[in-house]
Amino acid sequence: MLRQFKDGRISEDKLLHFLKDLPYQDLEFAKVDHHRILRQGFSEVIFGRGKTIKQILAIAGSLLERHENLLITSAPETVFPEIQKLCSEAQHFPASQLISVQRDKIIKGYGRIAVISAGTTDIPVAEEAAVTAQFMGNEVVTSYDCGVAGIHRLLDLRKVILDCSVIVAVAGMEGALPSVVGGLAECPVIAVPTSVGYGAAFKGVTALLSMLNSCSPNVTVVNIDNGFGAGFVASLINRSQPGRER
Amino acid sequence: MLRQFKDGRISEDKLLHFLKDLPYQDLEFAKVDHHRILRQGFSEVIFGRGKTIKQILAIAGSLLERHENLLITSAPETVFPEIQKLCSEAQHFPASQLISVQRDKIIKGYGRIAVISAGTTDIPVAEEAAVTAQFMGNEVVTSYDCGVAGIHRLLDLRKVILDCSVIVAVAGMEGALPSVVGGLAECPVIAVPTSVGYGAAFKGVTALLSMLNSCSPNVTVVNIDNGFGAGFVASLINRSQPGRER
Amino acid sequence: MLRQFKDGRISEDKLLHFLKDLPYQDLEFAKVDHHRILRQGFSEVIFGRGKTIKQILAIAGSLLERHENLLITSAPETVFPEIQKLCSEAQHFPASQLISVQRDKIIKGYGRIAVISAGTTDIPVAEEAAVTAQFMGNEVVTSYDCGVAGIHRLLDLRKVILDCSVIVAVAGMEGALPSVVGGLAECPVIAVPTSVGYGAAFKGVTALLSMLNSCSPNVTVVNIDNGFGAGFVASLINRSQPGRER
Amino acid sequence: MLRQFKDGRISEDKLLHFLKDLPYQDLEFAKVDHHRILRQGFSEVIFGRGKTIKQILAIAGSLLERHENLLITSAPETVFPEIQKLCSEAQHFPASQLISVQRDKIIKGYGRIAVISAGTTDIPVAEEAAVTAQFMGNEVVTSYDCGVAGIHRLLDLRKVILDCSVIVAVAGMEGALPSVVGGLAECPVIAVPTSVGYGAAFKGVTALLSMLNSCSPNVTVVNIDNGFGAGFVASLINRSQPGRER
Amino acid sequence: MLRQFKDGRISEDKLLHFLKDLPYQDLEFAKVDHHRILRQGFSEVIFGRGKTIKQILAIAGSLLERHENLLITSAPETVFPEIQKLCSEAQHFPASQLISVQRDKIIKGYGRIAVISAGTTDIPVAEEAAVTAQFMGNEVVTSYDCGVAGIHRLLDLRKVILDCSVIVAVAGMEGALPSVVGGLAECPVIAVPTSVGYGAAFKGVTALLSMLNSCSPNVTVVNIDNGFGAGFVASLINRSQPGRER
Amino acid sequence: MLRQFKDGRISEDKLLHFLKDLPYQDLEFAKVDHHRILRQGFSEVIFGRGKTIKQILAIAGSLLERHENLLITSAPETVFPEIQKLCSEAQHFPASQLISVQRDKIIKGYGRIAVISAGTTDIPVAEEAAVTAQFMGNEVVTSYDCGVAGIHRLLDLRKVILDCSVIVAVAGMEGALPSVVGGLAECPVIAVPTSVGYGAAFKGVTALLSMLNSCSPNVTVVNIDNGFGAGFVASLINRSQPGRER
Amino acid sequence: MLRQFKDGRISEDKLLHFLKDLPYQDLEFAKVDHHRILRQGFSEVIFGRGKTIKQILAIAGSLLERHENLLITSAPETVFPEIQKLCSEAQHFPASQLISVQRDKIIKGYGRIAVISAGTTDIPVAEEAAVTAQFMGNEVVTSYDCGVAGIHRLLDLRKVILDCSVIVAVAGMEGALPSVVGGLAECPVIAVPTSVGYGAAFKGVTALLSMLNSCSPNVTVVNIDNGFGAGFVASLINRSQPGRER
Amino acid sequence: MLRQFKDGRISEDKLLHFLKDLPYQDLEFAKVDHHRILRQGFSEVIFGRGKTIKQILAIAGSLLERHENLLITSAPETVFPEIQKLCSEAQHFPASQLISVQRDKIIKGYGRIAVISAGTTDIPVAEEAAVTAQFMGNEVVTSYDCGVAGIHRLLDLRKVILDCSVIVAVAGMEGALPSVVGGLAECPVIAVPTSVGYGAAFKGVTALLSMLNSCSPNVTVVNIDNGFGAGFVASLINRSQPGRER
Repeated sequence: MLRQFKDGRISEDKLLHFLKDLPYQDLEFAKVDHHRILRQGFSEVIFGRGKTIKQILAIAGSLLERHENLLITSAPETVFPEIQKLCSEAQHFPASQLISVQRDKIIKGYGRIAVISAGTTDIPVAEEAAVTAQFMGNEVVTSYDCGVAGIHRLLDLRKVILDCSVIVAVAGMEGALPSVVGGLAECPVIAVPTSVGYGAAFKGVTALLSMLNSCSPNVTVVNIDNGFGAGFVASLINRSQPGRER
Repeated sequence: MLRQFKDGRISEDKLLHFLKDLPYQDLEFAKVDHHRILRQGFSEVIFGRGKTIKQILAIAGSLLERHENLLITSAPETVFPEIQKLCSEAQHFPASQLISVQRDKIIKGYGRIAVISAGTTDIPVAEEAAVTAQFMGNEVVTSYDCGVAGIHRLLDLRKVILDCSVIVAVAGMEGALPSVVGGLAECPVIAVPTSVGYGAAFKGVTALLSMLNSCSPNVTVVNIDNGFGAGFVASLINRSQPGRER
Repeated sequence: MLRQFKDGRISEDKLLHFLKDLPYQDLEFAKVDHHRILRQGFSEVIFGRGKTIKQILAIAGSLLERHENLLITSAPETVFPEIQKLCSEAQHFPASQLISVQRDKIIKGYGRIAVISAGTTDIPVAEEAAVTAQFMGNEVVTSYDCGVAGIHRLLDLRKVILDCSVIVAVAGMEGALPSVVGGLAECPVIAVPTSVGYGAAFKGVTALLSMLNSCSPNVTVVNIDNGFGAGFVASLINRSQPGRER
Repeated sequence: MLRQFKDGRISEDKLLHFLKDLPYQDLEFAKVDHHRILRQGFSEVIFGRGKTIKQILAIAGSLLERHENLLITSAPETVFPEIQKLCSEAQHFPASQLISVQRDKIIKGYGRIAVISAGTTDIPVAEEAAVTAQFMGNEVVTSYDCGVAGIHRLLDLRKVILDCSVIVAVAGMEGALPSVVGGLAECPVIAVPTSVGYGAAFKGVTALLSMLNSCSPNVTVVNIDNGFGAGFVASLINRSQPGRER
Repeated sequence: MLRQFKDGRISEDKLLHFLKDLPYQDLEFAKVDHHRILRQGFSEVIFGRGKTIKQILAIAGSLLERHENLLITSAPETVFPEIQKLCSEAQHFPASQLISVQRDKIIKGYGRIAVISAGTTDIPVAEEAAVTAQFMGNEVVTSYDCGVAGIHRLLDLRKVILDCSVIVAVAGMEGALPSVVGGLAECPVIAVPTSVGYGAAFKGVTALLSMLNSCSPNVTVVNIDNGFGAGFVASLINRSQPGRER
Repeated sequence: MLRQFKDGRISEDKLLHFLKDLPYQDLEFAKVDHHRILRQGFSEVIFGRGKTIKQILAIAGSLLERHENLLITSAPETVFPEIQKLCSEAQHFPASQLISVQRDKIIKGYGRIAVISAGTTDIPVAEEAAVTAQFMGNEVVTSYDCGVAGIHRLLDLRKVILDCSVIVAVAGMEGALPSVVGGLAECPVIAVPTSVGYGAAFKGVTALLSMLNSCSPNVTVVNIDNGFGAGFVASLINRSQPGRER
Repeated sequence: MLRQFKDGRISEDKLLHFLKDLPYQDLEFAKVDHHRILRQGFSEVIFGRGKTIKQILAIAGSLLERHENLLITSAPETVFPEIQKLCSEAQHFPASQLISVQRDKIIKGYGRIAVISAGTTDIPVAEEAAVTAQFMGNEVVTSYDCGVAGIHRLLDLRKVILDCSVIVAVAGMEGALPSVVGGLAECPVIAVPTSVGYGAAFKGVTALLSMLNSCSPNVTVVNIDNGFGAGFVASLINRSQPGRER
Repeated sequence: MLRQFKDGRISEDKLLHFLKDLPYQDLEFAKVDHHRILRQGFSEVIFGRGKTIKQILAIAGSLLERHENLLITSAPETVFPEIQKLCSEAQHFPASQLISVQRDKIIKGYGRIAVISAGTTDIPVAEEAAVTAQFMGNEVVTSYDCGVAGIHRLLDLRKVILDCSVIVAVAGMEGALPSVVGGLAECPVIAVPTSVGYGAAFKGVTALLSMLNSCSPNVTVVNIDNGFGAGFVASLINRSQPGRER
């Protein structure tokens, strides 16, 4: 931000307005943490789930005034036209319920991130991970419907798997994909259980438990359907780390 | 039995003694079902779990008098010497806690049964399945430590997998083995979850759930650690079916 | 397929078109595995659950071009008219949400498959199993509302039970049917828990657990409401097995 | 008690001593409710589980001074010799961990109580129910190892089942026995799940759930392994009811 | 029935028609067990849950032709007018979703049955129990909103509690009512957990578990919301028992 | 502390030694928070569970040097003699596994705290609560074995219940005690579920759930067997509150 | 009430009318406990959940006739206009589904109550606690969106936390807020888990378990989403206690 | 390995011996995957849990012949002396049950890894993570007993938290540590739930669920007590990634 000010990209007014709200801005129902955004270089995210449309718009307005980019997860259908009014570059991903504004598109990650999903029905969650990672400045490759029951489809991905920095493996039902991918990969694998399945799939619990017990030791797990979280951590891993000499 | 009598292999006395106890023999604490054994051609089995040694020996005595073969599951250590006294051909499998007497060794199954296990720690359950299937008159091939995290170990088994009538797939932890095996196989796969694992493995529950949700539709499941049941059903499938013309 | 080509039943064009997509055809959102279908002689199945109507139709189109038969499970109501446009022989089973196209009706199974259900409310799942088994080329007999609380209704089925190669036993609530059927039968019994029941039935979990603990050792279990899976495995068991001399 | 006094069976002293402790006697760690025992005509019971031997003996002493009969459940092995010192008529049932003193053996129940168990391993719990019912003044018939997988063993009991006032049905594993018994019976069936089984039996939870979902509407359920409770309620049902004209 | 024929209350035709369908009548989707109804003197009940309206009406028609009374549980709203067409005496209980036809109103029970519920919201389930018991020929007293947090409301019922043959205690949330009632009563208490509550009430599971662990030994339990089952068993207990001399 | 110094009760040395370790003292395996103890006026507590004896003694030594009082929970048997060496006033409560050193015995609470338990077996947990509350400077009254099945025992406590500031209600099995106590009381009730019970008591889970669903709104809950926590919060409630004018 | 009569604030008629309904008024479907309200000085509350609108209005009418204040929880939208007709002072809090009538606004609590919530989505439950506490005569301060992931937002509240008598800490997801608040506070903390979250949040179960295991010993817990209960107990703690000298 | 051969550090014999066993060496009960070790540069690990001592030693022997380093997890006490015989550099970590042989000590990670634990009792798991990370060639800093109830202890670590590449956060009970650490950190946080706690801690399940629901999006989770897995993934993240330009 300070650099942007120095470069003349933002006005003194905007900077002052911004500094006023440090460390965070209190909207009564929410405390928007502009400081953390700056400090951590994280992208700006609103978790839409459970917020009213009014609340989402108020926070979005506050963020768009001060930051380049914005991601809204679990965005209700009717929010998108309103966001478009605030910012015409906004993009909508209906399957994964994401809205993104990405005015700063600089690639910040070193390697590539692969997002692999087991079934056709897992695609919305996989897309959430892929869009998030892309939004956070990474090159992303995706491959869907690679479930372990047709192992040759997965083996065909071997080159992709060996060639990337992090893998996000998305699966419902028995959640076996991350174990097999983990065995093929040399990098960290972030497993995302999905609520896909029926009966004893227990809305993703079976896949979650399966992934937590993966016999591949390079697998860590996020919450059920948490494509955003997986994309986010994958980005962190792929970004330059503090203290890392380059 | 009648055939054995006709062939002179058993005496009239033994036959009469046997017929006396049809349809079942009441030992007060147990009703030994000699009839079902005959009718179904099933092997003779005592489920040792929860029975006192005295009870096991009484039932074993009753069975050995009237039948050729005998299998005891979950047999307490101290039972074996006593069974040996009753019948010197008895064999002991300490890892899987089985005792078998197999005086009739005729092969009754058409094809071969494969027993595949994921890890070294799953071997006792896998052995229980393998010994049971062998005991019931089948040719059995085994391969252990073929977990999905090292998929090439499993792919090396492809020929075995395609070449048998039924597969028993044994795994703990995330229980992914049956899904992958099921995708490679063309025959029914019986999945056996084991209580191997820790933490969120929940003593086999995770593997059980995982297997019930297998994306391979040729997979059916038995109870946790139920190697016997898997070996038993595998034998049934491999045996000639009633009404099946050959 | 090659045989069909040789017999002149399919044109060279169709064969080439088909070979082009080996081992699988990538529809972006799905990888249709024409190869497995050929190799395993399995019937062609689309799992409708969680797929959009558009996705189902695209996969159905791809399959109907290259294969004789097609089964769609969990098919949304509105899909049927569209499938009928693609193929007038299509049949609809609204209770079990199946759509089938069965242009090749050759019986491939050796024996008969019995589908027995406990209550009137279990019929949709039982029908799913029965239609699937029929679709895969088997002779199927069904008997519904045979719950264990009216044991004489079940005992009347004794002849049917002894006369078939495989039994699919479908029950909700306490899920006791497979245990009793298993005791009467000499063949494998595939137990299907249904989500029928209320309160402590936990949407089929009680029936599932009950079946996994069956005291009849010839019982294996599939997922809750998985009529398709049960019909499928029953078919595999009833089909000639690889390596089995006849 | 008053009647016993009037009949001269107990002395005035004993009566006064007794009245002193109405409505209950406070032993500091326990409040012994002599009043309820009198009022309800219930038998005198000490629940041994979790009590120290010292506590059990103190309560037993207090009860034996004032009442004819005494039942101790979950009695630690070492308690029996001490109770024998207090009262030589004491009886020990080691399998079901019961100790009983039954000086008053008048039959109070109208009909007979049947206790039926599924497997050999369920016998300790079944015995707990049978001894309790007998102790409370009932005629009891027992039949063990009548599991539903050998349905003819159960059908042989049909006459017994139709001829009694209440049935206690004891089973572990899939807990199907009460449903079948309930269908055959015309009287109330009290189902007792046992912790017999392994894996997905979950120490009796599966049997418990199964029984709660019984399709026979004459089945009610008590806690896992609660043979005492079942015997107790069976006795209440079999006793003359207050307000019931005879 | 035979008696009714002898008394001239039913014609020979109706009797013959009836005998034709012994032991049960097969409606394809249901096997109506006229025999059991006769043999057990049970009332005629259709479990409406999960049945289509068409199925309910078909079974109702079959039953009303041959029996005096009829009870339909979980009856869909729209069924009642149709039943009224079949039989003008039909009664509707919308809160508990029951429909009853009670042409034979003879009291068969010896004592009185009390139905007590904890909260206002438990009334539908309590009413289901009360109507069922009444339908089966019993005198029933009810008292609602007697939860244990206002213990004096319950203590006011002491006389009722001591004066009846069986008690049905209905409660949701923590399900403590049956324990307190059980302590006050001398007769059997049938506990019915309801799905009333929120959060950690888990749709009745908490109440169910609580009741199974009741420290009052005269309590048995039925499934969550199973008012019918409780009323049914209460009736059995209150009826004359076979083998009971009067 | 400063006051103690001013009063001459502690030396300057001890004060300086103490100040040196503010805000906490790092023992490598533990960070002893002397500051919080001072600031909050809380008593000094070591949670023994899972700590080695060596670790407990090191922390105890550090605390006894700087503070008047000390409480050790879940203290292993063998720790007590060692603590006695450090401080001869130490007291041992074997049933509740507590060790206390209470050199400062000033009563700090305004009212009285009542600790009421349901059964004899709940006494160890109840004692843990009572000793803790006493240790923290409160007058405590206890009454054990007041389970709801014998409601008159509880009603006899009415005066005690109305006469205290806080109540700790301890129960296992169905955990109904706090609901009834809560209805009788006018003050806050802290419910402590215990792991007492068997089968569907699930080691206290049933009691815990029951208490969380209490229909008495003055009930809050702590973890299973957490007598210490209940005694602690009861003390806080009974102590003078900051900002409260007196 | 008697004081109000003496002061002339209510008429003799109203007093007599009131006394007539002691100890409680039976509305058939509900027993309104006017006595407890008086005796405990508790505010007048109707739990709306599961009650019909008719039932709520009947109880509300009965209460408003005899008491100054009234609170309705989980009030259906359509009830408010009806309550307004009964009493124009009624207030509606749509987010937390509360309706309150507060004619007596005397502050009865000594200190202040803080209500702190973790996220924006937790606000409805937090508001339920805050309104309840205010309604019961307390000064309340609130701070929302203070989740532990932005710990500085919470540290900014340190003064508030140290300055109040009781804290209500409301959180969903991982439910960590009460532990951190508990560590900062010197007063009792009442933790309220909310059903906010998805996947493995299990509708508040995760937050509930987390809070029950809080490492801060000053934390007690109420049911999921039970803002009312938390506000109620907080009020009790903040009110003068019986037996407490001031 | 080839490099080592070229450098003369290993003989031609050893290389050939090694190549012979590619891709893996079959020990009958285990398939040792020397290839993966090479390919992935992973360290050599034996999971001791559930393996017999004989099996561990056989695998260890095979590995030590061909590789520089070796780590054994969950190593039984009695294994260490045997390993020492094989290799005198072996080290034993009794608390975390690890045995390591680390002949190659080159640092391969770029940044530093921090291992932070909540309580004293969590140390064994934390140590497992720390030793693993160190073993895999990383600089590791540890800080124990930093639970969130004493937040200042955690805030003192702020510099460490901001200065490292990856953080492993270990906690039992309510598992809140990773959420707070995640909010302070800018790097990925790997959360390890431990089985520390009692009652509703459910052997680590509560901590596990809590961590999966962390409101800090940079948190991923491994299985309960899986210190090894956390240390392993932390190492992967800290190592140079394939395809990453430096």
